[in-house]
Amino acid sequence: MIFDRAGRPGAAPAAPRALQDLDTPRLILDEARMDGNIIRLRSRLRSAGVEFRPHLKTAKSVEIARRMITGPRGPATVSTLREAEEFAAAGIVDLVYAVGISPAKLPRVQSIRKRGVALTILLDSVEQAEAVAAASDPADPIPVLIELDCDGHRSGVKPGDDALLLAIARVLSPCAELRGVLTHAGESYEARGPQALAAAAENERASAVMAARSLRAMGHECPVVSVGSTPTAFSARSYEGVTEVRAGVFVFFDLVQAGIGVCSLEDIALSVLTTVIGHQRGKGWTIVDAGWTALSCDRGTATQAVDQGYGLACDLSGRPIPGLNVVAVNQEHGVLAMRADALGSAPDLPVGTRLRILPNHACATAAQHGLYHVIRAGETEATAQWPRFSGW
Amino acid sequence: MIFDRAGRPGAAPAAPRALQDLDTPRLILDEARMDGNIIRLRSRLRSAGVEFRPHLKTAKSVEIARRMITGPRGPATVSTLREAEEFAAAGIVDLVYAVGISPAKLPRVQSIRKRGVALTILLDSVEQAEAVAAASDPADPIPVLIELDCDGHRSGVKPGDDALLLAIARVLSPCAELRGVLTHAGESYEARGPQALAAAAENERASAVMAARSLRAMGHECPVVSVGSTPTAFSARSYEGVTEVRAGVFVFFDLVQAGIGVCSLEDIALSVLTTVIGHQRGKGWTIVDAGWTALSCDRGTATQAVDQGYGLACDLSGRPIPGLNVVAVNQEHGVLAMRADALGSAPDLPVGTRLRILPNHACATAAQHGLYHVIRAGETEATAQWPRFSGW
Repeated sequence: MIFDRAGRPGAAPAAPRALQDLDTPRLILDEARMDGNIIRLRSRLRSAGVEFRPHLKTAKSVEIARRMITGPRGPATVSTLREAEEFAAAGIVDLVYAVGISPAKLPRVQSIRKRGVALTILLDSVEQAEAVAAASDPADPIPVLIELDCDGHRSGVKPGDDALLLAIARVLSPCAELRGVLTHAGESYEARGPQALAAAAENERASAVMAARSLRAMGHECPVVSVGSTPTAFSARSYEGVTEVRAGVFVFFDLVQAGIGVCSLEDIALSVLTTVIGHQRGKGWTIVDAGWTALSCDRGTATQAVDQGYGLACDLSGRPIPGLNVVAVNQEHGVLAMRADALGSAPDLPVGTRLRILPNHACATAAQHGLYHVIRAGETEATAQWPRFSGW
Repeated sequence: MIFDRAGRPGAAPAAPRALQDLDTPRLILDEARMDGNIIRLRSRLRSAGVEFRPHLKTAKSVEIARRMITGPRGPATVSTLREAEEFAAAGIVDLVYAVGISPAKLPRVQSIRKRGVALTILLDSVEQAEAVAAASDPADPIPVLIELDCDGHRSGVKPGDDALLLAIARVLSPCAELRGVLTHAGESYEARGPQALAAAAENERASAVMAARSLRAMGHECPVVSVGSTPTAFSARSYEGVTEVRAGVFVFFDLVQAGIGVCSLEDIALSVLTTVIGHQRGKGWTIVDAGWTALSCDRGTATQAVDQGYGLACDLSGRPIPGLNVVAVNQEHGVLAMRADALGSAPDLPVGTRLRILPNHACATAAQHGLYHVIRAGETEATAQWPRFSGW
């Protein structure tokens, strides 16, 4: 029997339930695989002497967050103010809100900070800096990181745009606290092979260090140099000049990460339990009761070497059934069929057969559920239920 | 001020809130547009003299269900047993659970039926029929519809497979109650133009009527002939032999339905309120705080004549900004850019600007939220909050 280490209300150990007897669809979490994933990244970063600020957006669970963080107060990363509030209530109070700040959210940021939360916010424009400076109390300045766009993926100041860095820093300085720079190598999801991944990580590191150097040369201290994405966190060869690494999806891993090459199928800790409800035998289809409400519509593997559809089928014990993918989803239906390039034919799966579907994108699949049913490695009995929140 | 007609706890009228002041992202429902959509379909079906069994899976809201149904007890359609339980608790007790039954769900079906709910279930195989017959009490037989696959879309007995129809009917007859047949023209989503839509509707009708005729010829009464999908519900030229029509997404409509041609952009009642948080001006990108957690990853318009990305941007009052789409989503970020074929350039949208995003697929977008913020047509003030449930 697994006991919840945190012992919070709402996370009481449930009576063990065989997966065979659970209603479907349900979200299943293999605790030992998750623990292995956490140990792997924490060991790597500890050896490199760099701090780990795990991203809690994938799990949105206090029980899981407590296993990811390196100290009782954090540090940690969040993607919504709702996460900041939920995790702060559980004592995790050293937080970076890693989405560019909307000025209208500043009163809520200040309300969270007044409760003793060390909440750092993110921005990449003079407009935002002006709003933050106006909302900040010089006696208790809002801590700010400047977002950098190291690889053209999304938001952030472009590498080498020292004029903009300086303009932001100047606007912030009198009232807010410029803590440093942050970047996310989002394009590393497109990298293939260890060399390309190492190059993406080095680009992420070098961009952040360069921007920090520019800010320091202009008289700003810039103590924080924050980098991170799951692919680069497992691929960097140097963290020189970096003070902290962020990563989130590694906690569960998924088919996208397996396709990139930073995990194996056996590392994937999350799956969706489903039941066979029918067949179209002439087409080789097996119909299951997990549609997009259970799996999400994420098609993250569509551009990878192996397109896994909406997920890869496993038997009840979690062993993948090679080539058997969810090829279509409706709201409450999934259609399983053999991938066109797969060898062999689909196994006979009578109505009532339980299967487990590995997700393309663990963040998106977990977001469709309110509860983790927790199993030990390879077991087929859920011994705990951990709540998961959502919303903003 | 709009009052909730139902007056249930949890649906109390909220103090009016300007959309400009709501936290973002939030789900916005234009009540007058929704009412117009409901009136349009109900009038059409009333004129045709055919019963309407609305599908409640899109809205998952008691307040909205009460506006869709034609009587206090229903009839209505659900896609999960959770929906059956929630709506039954609100007095909506004439229900079809329109997903093929998994034998393991039969105890829960029976538990719902014992509470006085007229819950009809669906199946398309002898295996399922055997399980239903075994679970059914001849003194209180479980009502069953046989699912038909009228257009190769998903589940169901193939047209003309009278041997399978008869085999299922024979297994059911001693213990369960064969009520009739049900089909869903899922392939109508691929039809383009009024003629193709009318043909899809006629195929749906004819397939169902033919199967009912076969069952009757074999001595089974088959009182129910149930058809439906939003595109065919608005396109059928005859309902001869049909006893009821189902449709769900019409209540909100969405960009997919507009692309099919069964609604206009002005009919779309659902949108996601979001705030501009940044720009990449060199690329023509505007970054907003609505990612896939708020919009879903649904790409239903990808194969249509106009690919709307992950949604179409509107101003705060709901007026579309022609050509401005959400072209990429991450967990909490959306990237707005002009469609390649759009005339004109993107408007200047400073940080803090509020926008509303029309969804590709209303079912999927609504499923990402727990609350509807209700506005009147064209107004920019939310005057009610209606809860929305999810899960199984």
